[in-house]
Amino acid sequence: MSAAFAYVSDAQGGGDADGWRQRLGAALGEAIDLRAWPDIGDAQDIAIALAWKPPPGALARLPNLRLIVSTGMGVDHLLVDPALPDVPIVRVIDPGLVGQMAEYAIYWTLHHHRDMEAYGTQQRQRRWHEVPFTDTATRRVGVMGLGEIGADTASKIAGLGFATAGWSRSPRAIDGIECFSGAAGLTAFLQRTDILIDVLPMTPQTAGMLDARAFTLLPRGAFFINMARGGHVVDDDLIAALDSGHLAGAALDVFHAEPLPADHPFWTHPKIKVTPHIAGPTNPRTAAESVAQNVRRLRAGAALVNLIDRNAGY
Amino acid sequence: MSAAFAYVSDAQGGGDADGWRQRLGAALGEAIDLRAWPDIGDAQDIAIALAWKPPPGALARLPNLRLIVSTGMGVDHLLVDPALPDVPIVRVIDPGLVGQMAEYAIYWTLHHHRDMEAYGTQQRQRRWHEVPFTDTATRRVGVMGLGEIGADTASKIAGLGFATAGWSRSPRAIDGIECFSGAAGLTAFLQRTDILIDVLPMTPQTAGMLDARAFTLLPRGAFFINMARGGHVVDDDLIAALDSGHLAGAALDVFHAEPLPADHPFWTHPKIKVTPHIAGPTNPRTAAESVAQNVRRLRAGAALVNLIDRNAGY
Ligand SMILES: NC(=O)c1ccc[n+]([C@@H]2O[C@H](COP(=O)([O-])OP(=O)(O)OC[C@H]3O[C@@H](n4cnc5c(N)ncnc54)[C@H](OP(=O)(O)O)[C@@H]3O)[C@@H](O)[C@H]2O)c1
Ligand SMILES: NC(=O)c1ccc[n+]([C@@H]2O[C@H](COP(=O)([O-])OP(=O)(O)OC[C@H]3O[C@@H](n4cnc5c(N)ncnc54)[C@H](OP(=O)(O)O)[C@@H]3O)[C@@H](O)[C@H]2O)c1
Repeated sequence: MSAAFAYVSDAQGGGDADGWRQRLGAALGEAIDLRAWPDIGDAQDIAIALAWKPPPGALARLPNLRLIVSTGMGVDHLLVDPALPDVPIVRVIDPGLVGQMAEYAIYWTLHHHRDMEAYGTQQRQRRWHEVPFTDTATRRVGVMGLGEIGADTASKIAGLGFATAGWSRSPRAIDGIECFSGAAGLTAFLQRTDILIDVLPMTPQTAGMLDARAFTLLPRGAFFINMARGGHVVDDDLIAALDSGHLAGAALDVFHAEPLPADHPFWTHPKIKVTPHIAGPTNPRTAAESVAQNVRRLRAGAALVNLIDRNAGY
Repeated sequence: MSAAFAYVSDAQGGGDADGWRQRLGAALGEAIDLRAWPDIGDAQDIAIALAWKPPPGALARLPNLRLIVSTGMGVDHLLVDPALPDVPIVRVIDPGLVGQMAEYAIYWTLHHHRDMEAYGTQQRQRRWHEVPFTDTATRRVGVMGLGEIGADTASKIAGLGFATAGWSRSPRAIDGIECFSGAAGLTAFLQRTDILIDVLPMTPQTAGMLDARAFTLLPRGAFFINMARGGHVVDDDLIAALDSGHLAGAALDVFHAEPLPADHPFWTHPKIKVTPHIAGPTNPRTAAESVAQNVRRLRAGAALVNLIDRNAGY
């Protein structure tokens, strides 16, 4: 039976073949045959593909493939491939990545909450001036998406004392978080949110949902953090909401096209912070155990975990 | 018996007379006679002074004073007054301030940890480039001072997954924090610290302790956050450590002289972030209960809490 692994990616952020070979081997307690695409030798050998933004069609060229593992926690990068083989898809649950996503959200939350933009400007002017502070308990943070990442992010932000809410598809209950759900809960969620953090998956339902209507529902002066997917946002509507003064600023890690094209207005907008999709890089050290778990289950014929629902899109 | 309060301050950051009158009155459940210095009417009426950076000699002009309450959590601003009356000094314990101090420390910790300076530069260059990330578990944060603020800050930073240590005068034990103490523990503490957070009080022992020797003990590439007191630092030694490349950067909220003089080199140093002593403003809403507690104890003749030890200096 074919038993080799392939790491299929030509993009940053999903780990690297050497890291996966070492860490997954260690987690499985064996030396593994893991080959880096495109140098995979005989394609018939590959049983398990670890994939991050694989070139479309690449996975279809593995005739004995039994499992696809998304090494990113989002899976839209796989589902866009029209030739995606009909084998189970699981994703890594990487506690290191989850923690780094929370760090990203907390950093920009504090950047806005503590007026760090104004203090940066004042330093350049050598100006010593205290900006009136906002009581943390009255600052309302809202996290869209309460999955692996959103729940951790929301809990940590609530732990800092912020008035924290979250929004998900199905109703959730999380200690210390005001939970909203579904289309019915969206308006109230947005209306009470001073700092909006997007950590939804990219699906047909979430595509373009952050549009003029959504931004208008946020209170005046709100701040927007996108660490999910650029496709959620109508870019022109975001710029209009910033330019009108309705939104105070935005920190964006993800974009419709990546790398963000050099002529895109986000790069130079005075109220926008751009980072190059670095909020949550997968770390083979912390992610390997999650992959090993499913490799063991596949070998034992047991039910896989962290399975993707192709219909839901996440 | 004199029963009036005075708020004695001519500086920012310790609350304001109106806020104290309202919040302390609410906490005591009575309308209080609180007068804002210098308009205190008959000085003989004042029994309790709430003070933040009071003008030297001002408190000595209150003949019936029975208690001084520092409305800042540091008390060096009182102890510098050579005419300080010989009455008990207590300080507020403000959970709102404690939380804001942790926010400040976390913000700059993440700024360094997540290479936000580099990403800001790259945005100005429209450059899309992932800086190799550092596993949070391998980033070593060290908090100097494990009192009310330091313990909260260290615990929250450890909660984000950082390898966190702390240093105090007497030995401490805090869950998840590697604790060092005393002169004997200082070298090992500094040698294992990539991000140093100073939250010590200003005392004869801590004055000038962050000098060339201390900075040299930190590993190359370390980052320094001072949210305690500027007097801990030998400014020229800090600049030398940054200029030599030994330290990667510093975020400073406090200075030998405040406001920081316009010609001070910190303002324009490319590796230094300056904020105008805003890390932890006292918030009468969250601090009032701590004052009320001692007012009730004073009235009942019970032992005061949060007393300052004039000999120790904190
Ligand atoms: N920038 C980066 O570096 C980076 C790194 C990793 C991941 N990400 C992004 O983060 C996303 C979230 O990751 P995760 O692991 O937290 O996902 P997850 O565990 O699958 O959770 C997704 C959450 O979104 C909710 N959701 C999905 N569709 C929705 C809809 N139509 N309306 C309302 N709520 C909806 C889900 O609701 P239910 O709870 O009801 O299912 C769930 O709470 C990924 O999909 C990826 O796009 C970005
Ligand atoms: N930037 C701002 O806005 C701002 C706002 C508030 C406060 N602060 C500063 O933060 C300081 C700390 O506040 P806090 O409420 O946390 O103080 P605290 O509760 O009095 O705790 C002080 C800590 O420092 C340690 N310490 C004192 N002297 C030491 C020495 N010589 N060597 C080693 N450790 C020593 C103490 O050790 P032990 O545990 O052994 O006693 C204790 O752990 C204040 O004094 C003030 O200067 C700044």
